Amino acid sequence: MDVISIHEYTMEMIQEAATRIRQSFTEKMEIETKANANDLVTNIDKETEQFIVEKIQAYDASHRIFGEEGMSEEQFADLKGVVWIVDPIDGTMNFIRQQRNFTISIAIYEDGIGKLGYIYDVVRDELYYAIAGQGAYVNEKRIQPLEPIELDKAIIGINASWVAKNNRLNTEKIAKLIHTVRGTRSYGSATIEMMYVATGRLESYMSMRLSPWDIAAGAVIAHEVGAKCTTLKGEPMNLLAQDTFIIANPSIHEQLISEYIELI
Amino acid sequence: MDVISIHEYTMEMIQEAATRIRQSFTEKMEIETKANANDLVTNIDKETEQFIVEKIQAYDASHRIFGEEGMSEEQFADLKGVVWIVDPIDGTMNFIRQQRNFTISIAIYEDGIGKLGYIYDVVRDELYYAIAGQGAYVNEKRIQPLEPIELDKAIIGINASWVAKNNRLNTEKIAKLIHTVRGTRSYGSATIEMMYVATGRLESYMSMRLSPWDIAAGAVIAHEVGAKCTTLKGEPMNLLAQDTFIIANPSIHEQLISEYIELI
Repeated sequence: MDVISIHEYTMEMIQEAATRIRQSFTEKMEIETKANANDLVTNIDKETEQFIVEKIQAYDASHRIFGEEGMSEEQFADLKGVVWIVDPIDGTMNFIRQQRNFTISIAIYEDGIGKLGYIYDVVRDELYYAIAGQGAYVNEKRIQPLEPIELDKAIIGINASWVAKNNRLNTEKIAKLIHTVRGTRSYGSATIEMMYVATGRLESYMSMRLSPWDIAAGAVIAHEVGAKCTTLKGEPMNLLAQDTFIIANPSIHEQLISEYIELI
Repeated sequence: MDVISIHEYTMEMIQEAATRIRQSFTEKMEIETKANANDLVTNIDKETEQFIVEKIQAYDASHRIFGEEGMSEEQFADLKGVVWIVDPIDGTMNFIRQQRNFTISIAIYEDGIGKLGYIYDVVRDELYYAIAGQGAYVNEKRIQPLEPIELDKAIIGINASWVAKNNRLNTEKIAKLIHTVRGTRSYGSATIEMMYVATGRLESYMSMRLSPWDIAAGAVIAHEVGAKCTTLKGEPMNLLAQDTFIIANPSIHEQLISEYIELI
């Protein structure tokens, strides 16, 4: 696997995909009042994935592709070989309703090991990426390794639906967490929240339910700056099926899981 | 009160204030590793307000100024005359930790009536503003009036601290709300969340505790597109003291308060 060649190819592909998405804004502006916005957006989602899939196949037809649209999870009993894990638009609700705060997310794994990761916040024009072992970048700027922080100074990304009484988490412990940390945020895009952790804008982000394509690219980038990615049980993150997920500054990862997370 | 003259003066003043804040980023980059980031930022907060206050006084020394830094609430038993309500940096924690997602917020009221409102998202370079009765704008673009929406399609801005068990709200009802709506977000800046409601990116934003300078400018802008601003009891919003607050698309404002908000 020629990492540099794939890197250059992917960087170009992402810019092309973003240009298509940006063009769709103008179309949407025109169509939104007469047509169903959700349908249109679904089309953009699918069209973007179609574009990315064709580009990957043109690059090397032997590579496997694992994506949100059109790929069934049954195909992926393992991550053998070269696997591209693609989310053409992460944060679809933001895309539809806000026309911002969404990303294109692409990861390349080889035999289950993350090799390259790309998350492009299209509207902010911020491309986060990493080649494993070579550091993480946002646009041309190197992202600095994370520094330790105490939990009471931390800002945590968590959606209110996991804080409100629910059937999956002990929300009393979550309430304790909410009142312990300095603040919480929720942006509606797992990839943006992961990149906020990677750049020290948040100290952690967690969710009860994420898919492989939500986390695969972010994990490669996060790894380069020292952020820890696991399930909420502290096990290796699941790249084959939907599961719980947490990314955190390594200084608080263990404490978050052991003191505040109780799955029920 | 010469509205157009004040408008032109304020537009220029905000750009100058923003330039100073942007310059502080470079200073901060250099200083952050050796000094206390919080102190530095407090200075920037105060320096920006000082700059704004001096500009207002130079414009008309008879105008009253009500701001977060250095102005005591006791001074404001009423809103008689021309009152500028200023928050030099709304979203201070975001400013410190994220260097984004904060705004400059300035409102001008006359005898308690909102006349002009300005909210500048410095890093996105988005200036929301309105002259009462003349519509709301973001940069040069007119913001469209809000369209009705059903609650189950709404995205609500609410911080997890009001969803986690607390002493001020019936959180069982809030949990019901969280599971009813399409989604929730939390950005850590009241002014940004209010402008997301004004532009249809959120349908509501609520908080148990906001100050007059958090909401004064946003209310003028929101009013122009039909968004409703009240306390969580449905009373007129409080511009003299810290209080509860809700802004909402008018089609769901009443329902939110009557069915889901119970202050304890």
